[in-house]
Amino acid sequence: MSERVLTRKGQARRAEILETALKVLAERGYRETSLRAIGRELGIEPAHILHYFQSREGLLEEVIRAWDAPVDAQNDAPFLQIWPEVLERNAKIPGLVHLYTALAAEASTPDHPSHDFFQNRYRRIRRRVADEVDRGMREGRYVPALSSDEIAVMLISLSDGLQLQWLIDPSINPASQLRSAITRLTEP
Amino acid sequence: MSERVLTRKGQARRAEILETALKVLAERGYRETSLRAIGRELGIEPAHILHYFQSREGLLEEVIRAWDAPVDAQNDAPFLQIWPEVLERNAKIPGLVHLYTALAAEASTPDHPSHDFFQNRYRRIRRRVADEVDRGMREGRYVPALSSDEIAVMLISLSDGLQLQWLIDPSINPASQLRSAITRLTEP
Repeated sequence: MSERVLTRKGQARRAEILETALKVLAERGYRETSLRAIGRELGIEPAHILHYFQSREGLLEEVIRAWDAPVDAQNDAPFLQIWPEVLERNAKIPGLVHLYTALAAEASTPDHPSHDFFQNRYRRIRRRVADEVDRGMREGRYVPALSSDEIAVMLISLSDGLQLQWLIDPSINPASQLRSAITRLTEP
Repeated sequence: MSERVLTRKGQARRAEILETALKVLAERGYRETSLRAIGRELGIEPAHILHYFQSREGLLEEVIRAWDAPVDAQNDAPFLQIWPEVLERNAKIPGLVHLYTALAAEASTPDHPSHDFFQNRYRRIRRRVADEVDRGMREGRYVPALSSDEIAVMLISLSDGLQLQWLIDPSINPASQLRSAITRLTEP
């Protein structure tokens, strides 16, 4: 999505809306889905959302980017080590996990405005995980029975599915399950 | 949800609406979410949906029950063997996979009308998979490193997550990935 050229004041207002959206969605989750309802929930005029983010999906994608940002910033960190920690952090913000899962499910039809956003996000994470497994194999830390790409697809699916199941049944522990699967999949 | 007592004619009409819903949702997926939009999509008056299914969620839950029925009927079959075949069958009806995933994500807030439906469904499948792993262990076919319940939670998450990822990126193959994970998790 192309970004509008914003004045410094406009940039500040945009950042403020994004911060409110992150806070409110983290606290209350993603119940309301229309542009109007999101605006009401955030206390922001729908026209302002459209001005700064072009569409409701534009705003929600930015919320997911902001949620991803701390992990993206640690691009030299061993992803398979920090990933379970990310799920531990997510367990404190179920509203954002809900937003992510519900929007990904919504966006799974090819004509959805966020379809490309999720397709690119999956591909990027899949490459990062596969690269990390390849590096572990070269360094002799990992001796997997499956290819690095298969492991990447499995772990991403597991992470998504564990968080969905946890939202519905909080008795499960996504972080410890993911940690256990990473061990099982990278051992000989 | 308690069922209305229906005349034979009423039962036939209810079955007919359910059949239409299954067909239309399998073909076109779950794009429209309001009762009115579902009615329009199915060519059925919203009042008829409410009369026969009490709510939009009542109808959608029945669609998921009908989708589950062939697997539930094979309750003596080795579930870990038929599960990948179920994903192969699902690959031909992405609309229903989409409905299932989107409704589960929607229902993850505790106050959603379908929350209990999904919570019970997860628990039922989790028990069936864990029982199956326990039986395989007693018969010496499985020698897993994890507990049967952990394996059940992981495989369910994997199945959900693989299908979500496949909806967004059809290059992945959920059935073969699940088959491979079942082997990895039940081996010594």
